[in-house]
Amino acid sequence: MVNQIYKQVFSLILLSILVCQSNTVSSFRKSLDLAKPCKRFILHLHDQSRHKTSKHGTVHDIAYDSDNAANATSAAIVNPIGLGEFSFGKFVIMDDPVTLDQNYLSKPVARVQGFFFYHGKAKYDAWIAWTVVFKSTQHKGAFTIMGENPFMEPTRDLPIVGGIGLVTSS
Amino acid sequence: MVNQIYKQVFSLILLSILVCQSNTVSSFRKSLDLAKPCKRFILHLHDQSRHKTSKHGTVHDIAYDSDNAANATSAAIVNPIGLGEFSFGKFVIMDDPVTLDQNYLSKPVARVQGFFFYHGKAKYDAWIAWTVVFKSTQHKGAFTIMGENPFMEPTRDLPIVGGIGLVTSS
Amino acid sequence: MVNQIYKQVFSLILLSILVCQSNTVSSFRKSLDLAKPCKRFILHLHDQSRHKTSKHGTVHDIAYDSDNAANATSAAIVNPIGLGEFSFGKFVIMDDPVTLDQNYLSKPVARVQGFFFYHGKAKYDAWIAWTVVFKSTQHKGAFTIMGENPFMEPTRDLPIVGGIGLVTSS
Repeated sequence: MVNQIYKQVFSLILLSILVCQSNTVSSFRKSLDLAKPCKRFILHLHDQSRHKTSKHGTVHDIAYDSDNAANATSAAIVNPIGLGEFSFGKFVIMDDPVTLDQNYLSKPVARVQGFFFYHGKAKYDAWIAWTVVFKSTQHKGAFTIMGENPFMEPTRDLPIVGGIGLVTSS
Repeated sequence: MVNQIYKQVFSLILLSILVCQSNTVSSFRKSLDLAKPCKRFILHLHDQSRHKTSKHGTVHDIAYDSDNAANATSAAIVNPIGLGEFSFGKFVIMDDPVTLDQNYLSKPVARVQGFFFYHGKAKYDAWIAWTVVFKSTQHKGAFTIMGENPFMEPTRDLPIVGGIGLVTSS
Repeated sequence: MVNQIYKQVFSLILLSILVCQSNTVSSFRKSLDLAKPCKRFILHLHDQSRHKTSKHGTVHDIAYDSDNAANATSAAIVNPIGLGEFSFGKFVIMDDPVTLDQNYLSKPVARVQGFFFYHGKAKYDAWIAWTVVFKSTQHKGAFTIMGENPFMEPTRDLPIVGGIGLVTSS
């Protein structure tokens, strides 16, 4: 259950549609074929446990449990403090690879770096600050998503608060 | 004293005037009567201890002290580290209801969710990241206030760094 | 080595060029002579250990080590959690003075306030949220730099996500 809840946090990106200012609507995969700066795109990301057959980018999050240092991509730096039963106070730092297939060992096209914590006393609720970093040869740039993420709701809007570079392809 | 200082942090919102881009100046309460998107508004919020007779929104912050789990709305996840006498290093996560009266059990019109920490060695000083979330039937939306908050000064400006949705009424 | 790495984090500002929207290109020192709001400026900052002869602003960061409370300007509130060998999970709060000379006791022209943490498992990597606060008689204002900071790379771009006031001189 806890594991499922944990993964739920990452599904937010799957369900969100990130739209920049422009004319071309394209999936992230499609945007790889564009030779010009993307002014508008829809980014599909999700965690590996939920969409086994996805053709979109997949965020691989593997929580550190003391025994999986080789594979872990995130870790709690503060544990729940015991206020309520929904992990209030748990603070997690992450550095998750994003790949275009289901294999987390594939070459990442991006990374999701930042933190989140749980702040719900009567239900699961999270507050996130995630920088999605594109650092491949074709794609340079980053943007940061920040704010409250009520991840138990089926859809959510999340603001992008800053970015650098161009998410383009050559 | 510590309690008073703690409450001081929340007075920032009282003293701040948040102005969006638009034509209508209205108190938060008045904005409830608007049938169109608010493009500009002044938001009055304050903590319950300071303005007993307020007619504006009130942020109810009750710090967790191990014995008040039922009422607590915020909690330190890291305690002061002992550098100076002004709580340097104390890191607090919050999920505070905002009501239109003095009763924290009233139906909230918004919540203030996020975190703050103390970073002053020779005086009290805080750094905040607060998402003000409107999730009632009439109001949907959120914005995040972030940055240094020198809360011992009588007035302060704080930047809004992102937002989603419309803070409107139907 | 650790100390050197630590200082490396702060070199980011040295190598970054922060450009606002405007016409005048000037060093931070030069901007002190402007009588009008700066719309565009290049800000040079660096840590004191790397540029002994600098004529630009210097960020003085002295990490708290339990014995240097009088001089310390930053302190870890969470220590590395043991995932990898690159301080993953270390979370540092800072309140660093910026001076125009190499003496950290000189009157500060600004402060860098906020936090950063390490999130690299296989290399050093940091995520920062720094508010650069100008609070002298001539300069009022602040801006916040936030996001992933791959500080081992020679140059980096970092987004400014919010600000208040004017960084001007009278």
